[in-house]
Amino acid sequence: MKTQKTIRAALLGCGTVGGGVYKLLDRRKEELADKAGASLEISAVLVHNVNKKREGVDPSLLTDDFERIANDPSIDIVIEVMGGIEPARTMILRSLRAGKNVVTANKDLIAVHGSKLLSAARENKVDLLFEAAVAGGIPIIRPLKQCLAGNELSDVVGIVNGTTNYILTKMFEENMDFDAALEKAKELGYAEADPTADIEGLDAGRKVAILASTAFHSPVVFDDVYTEGITKISSSDIKYAKEFDCVIKLLGIARERQEQIEAYVCPMLLPADHPLATVRGSFNAVFVHGDAVDDVMFYGRGAGEFPTASAVVGDVIDVMRNMEYGCTGRIGCGCYRSVPVKQFRDVKNKFFIRMQVINRPGVLAAIAGELGRHKVSISKVVQKVITKGSAELVIVTEDVKEYHMSEALEDLKELEPVQEISSVIRSY
Amino acid sequence: MKTQKTIRAALLGCGTVGGGVYKLLDRRKEELADKAGASLEISAVLVHNVNKKREGVDPSLLTDDFERIANDPSIDIVIEVMGGIEPARTMILRSLRAGKNVVTANKDLIAVHGSKLLSAARENKVDLLFEAAVAGGIPIIRPLKQCLAGNELSDVVGIVNGTTNYILTKMFEENMDFDAALEKAKELGYAEADPTADIEGLDAGRKVAILASTAFHSPVVFDDVYTEGITKISSSDIKYAKEFDCVIKLLGIARERQEQIEAYVCPMLLPADHPLATVRGSFNAVFVHGDAVDDVMFYGRGAGEFPTASAVVGDVIDVMRNMEYGCTGRIGCGCYRSVPVKQFRDVKNKFFIRMQVINRPGVLAAIAGELGRHKVSISKVVQKVITKGSAELVIVTEDVKEYHMSEALEDLKELEPVQEISSVIRSY
Repeated sequence: MKTQKTIRAALLGCGTVGGGVYKLLDRRKEELADKAGASLEISAVLVHNVNKKREGVDPSLLTDDFERIANDPSIDIVIEVMGGIEPARTMILRSLRAGKNVVTANKDLIAVHGSKLLSAARENKVDLLFEAAVAGGIPIIRPLKQCLAGNELSDVVGIVNGTTNYILTKMFEENMDFDAALEKAKELGYAEADPTADIEGLDAGRKVAILASTAFHSPVVFDDVYTEGITKISSSDIKYAKEFDCVIKLLGIARERQEQIEAYVCPMLLPADHPLATVRGSFNAVFVHGDAVDDVMFYGRGAGEFPTASAVVGDVIDVMRNMEYGCTGRIGCGCYRSVPVKQFRDVKNKFFIRMQVINRPGVLAAIAGELGRHKVSISKVVQKVITKGSAELVIVTEDVKEYHMSEALEDLKELEPVQEISSVIRSY
Repeated sequence: MKTQKTIRAALLGCGTVGGGVYKLLDRRKEELADKAGASLEISAVLVHNVNKKREGVDPSLLTDDFERIANDPSIDIVIEVMGGIEPARTMILRSLRAGKNVVTANKDLIAVHGSKLLSAARENKVDLLFEAAVAGGIPIIRPLKQCLAGNELSDVVGIVNGTTNYILTKMFEENMDFDAALEKAKELGYAEADPTADIEGLDAGRKVAILASTAFHSPVVFDDVYTEGITKISSSDIKYAKEFDCVIKLLGIARERQEQIEAYVCPMLLPADHPLATVRGSFNAVFVHGDAVDDVMFYGRGAGEFPTASAVVGDVIDVMRNMEYGCTGRIGCGCYRSVPVKQFRDVKNKFFIRMQVINRPGVLAAIAGELGRHKVSISKVVQKVITKGSAELVIVTEDVKEYHMSEALEDLKELEPVQEISSVIRSY
C-alpha cells in the first residue's frame, strides 16, 4: 500500500557520516514507503564549501545558507551530522523551534546540552533522536528508553571507543607496545592525527554522560564524568592481566548506587569470562544490568560511515512513522528525576598496584600496614624477585574509595623500601 | 508532571511469566506515570482455578471468565501470558477486535498465526507487541523493526534456547555427556520434565520463524523451519570441535540469499572467535548482519520470570505511550514483501563428518572420490588410527547443498571400507 506522500529533509554536514546517510537513504529509496508510509527527499545539504565535489551527492542540493533551510516550511526533518558544539547547537535549536524534527549523531553536543535541546523538542512537540551519538550502529538508546523501560537499571558499562579498544587488543593479543599499536590504529584510520580525545577517554566520557542520563532518567553532563585514558598501560600490566585471567579494557561506567550516580571512564582489569572481555578490535559493546532483565549486552560497530548512518536512518524512519501517526515527540527526554552525581573521590573500586620495592624481610608487612592504615584491604599479592636486591610487588585490593586510595599511594611513595609505583589500574 | 489518568489492563494467565509481570508492574507503580504518562491498573487476571492462592496477587482480581474481560470497555490492554495456541489465539483475536491493545509473550502462537493476528491489530488500529516471544528479556524485535530499519538485513543467527545452550556448555566445559548434562539442566529447572521441545530444536524453530518474518519483512511460519536437535552430539564431537578451535552450539538461522529465505535450526561447529561462541550457560544471543550496520549482537537472558516480564512490561509501557499520543498501531506487521522460503534440501552448509573406517591404503581416496562424485569438496581431513585395522576419519567439507550431502552419505554408508558414520554436524 504505497502512498505518494513525500517528506522533505535537510542534511547539515556532508562529511563521512553525512555522506553515509545520504547514500544509505538513496539505497533504501524504494523500501521507505513500505517502512515509513512515505517517501523521503533530501532537499538541501548544508556544507561550508558548495563548490567542493562530493561523490554521489547531487550538487544542486548543496547550500552554505542555513537560513534557507530554517525558513523552508516544507522541510520537516533536519539531520545534523556536522559534529561539534557550535554552530550545531544553534542550528538544532532553531530547527526545533521552527517545528522541525531533528536527528543527530552529535555526542559532543548531546553530552553537554542534551537536556535543553530535549526541552525545546518537547515544547515544540517534535522529535529529537540521537541513537547514533552513542556506540554508532549499535542500538542502545532506544532499547534503554523503550525495551528496558520496565527495569530499574543499576549498571551501564561500555566499551564505547573503538580506537582505544583496537589499541588495547593489539597490545594484548600481539604484545605490541602502546606507541606501536597507536601507529597501527592511525594507519588503519581508526585513530585521528590528534588522538587525544580517544586515548584520553574524552570521547568515551561524552557517551557515558548520555548513557547515564538515559538509563537513570536524570541529567548527567560531560563535566560530571571523570575521565582517564590508556596511555600509561604498559606491556608489564598486560602480562599480569593475563596471569590473573583478565583483560584490560577502557570502560565507560555509569552506575546508580544509593540514590547517587557514578559516571567515569578509565582502563580496568576485567575478568576474561565477562561478556565485555570478548569485545575485540574496533568493536564496541554496552553491558546493562537491570533489576528485572538481569544482564544484557549490545555489541557491534561503534563508528564508521555506514554503521553510524544505520543508526541515523533508523531514527529518520522513526520520525517519519511518528509524522504519519501524528505523534512526534512521543519519546522525549525521560529525565524525570534529579539524582546527584557522586564526586569521583567517593567512588569505590578495586585497584591493581604494581610497584618496585627493595627485596628484604619486613617490606611486605610495612606496605600492607600502610595500606591498612588507609582502610585499603588486600585481596591478592604477587611478588617476583627481579634482582637480588629488588622485587616487583603486585597488589590487588578490595573495594576502596578513590580518596583513600590516593592518600595511601601518596604515603606509600614516601615509604623507604618503595622504589617506584609503576602502575595503578582499577579492577572491575 | 504526574497525571491522574489510569489505564486498565487484564492479564491472561498467571503462571511464572504472568506472576512476574504482575509483580514487576507493581514494583514500577510509582514510575509509570513518569515513564508512560499514566498509571496502570491490573483489573482482571484470567486463570483456570480462581480458588488457587497466588502469592502477591490480589485474589479479588482472579476470574475464569474471559467474557468479562472482552466485554469490559474500560480495559484497554490485554496481556496474554498463557502460552499455547488455543484458547490464546481466540482470546487475542477477540481482544483486538474489541479495540484492545495486546501484549503477548506467546512464541508458539506468533510463529504460526502472527500474520493474521497482526492484520487484525492493523484493522482495529491497535498495538500487538511481542518482544518477549523471542529471546526473553533481550531487546530484539524492536531493534529489528526500528533501530535497524535502515538496513537490508541478510543474516539473523541466534542461540535462542537456554536449555540446550546450558547442556552444550556443560558438555564442552566439563566434559559431561549429553544425558548427565540434561539431568543437571532438569535439576536446575532449565529443562522441563519432557524436554522434547527444547532438545529437538522446536522451541528455537518457533523463534527463528518470528525472527525471519521480522527481519526480512515476509511471513515465515514454524512449518517453514527445518529443525534438528542436539541429542546426537557426543563427547567425541566436542573433542574434535576443541581441536578445530570451535565450539558446538544449537543455532537458529534465518538468512536471505538471492531473494529466498533460509530458516533452520541445527547444532553447528562455530569458530571460537565468533561472538556467539562466547555465549555460555543458559544465556541467549542473537547475531544480526545488515548491509549498513555490519555485525551486531544482542545478548542476555532468554527466559525466566523477571527477564521475560521485563520484555512484556517494556511493551506495555510502549502501548501506554502510544495511547497517550493517540498512535496505537504505529509499528505494525512490517511484512510488505513475499519472499519464498527455500526448501531445506537446497540450503548450502559446510559439514563435519566423523566416521570409522578400515585402516588400509586407498581408503581415503575411495571416500574422497565418492564425495567428489556428489559435488562435495573437502576442506580438511583428520585421520586417527584407533586399532591396527581401523581408523577414525574426520572430514570437513566446503559448502554443499543438503541433498547432495544426503545422497553422498547414503552412498558412503555402502562403501566397503566404511564401518560406521558416527556423526554429521554442520559447520558455520
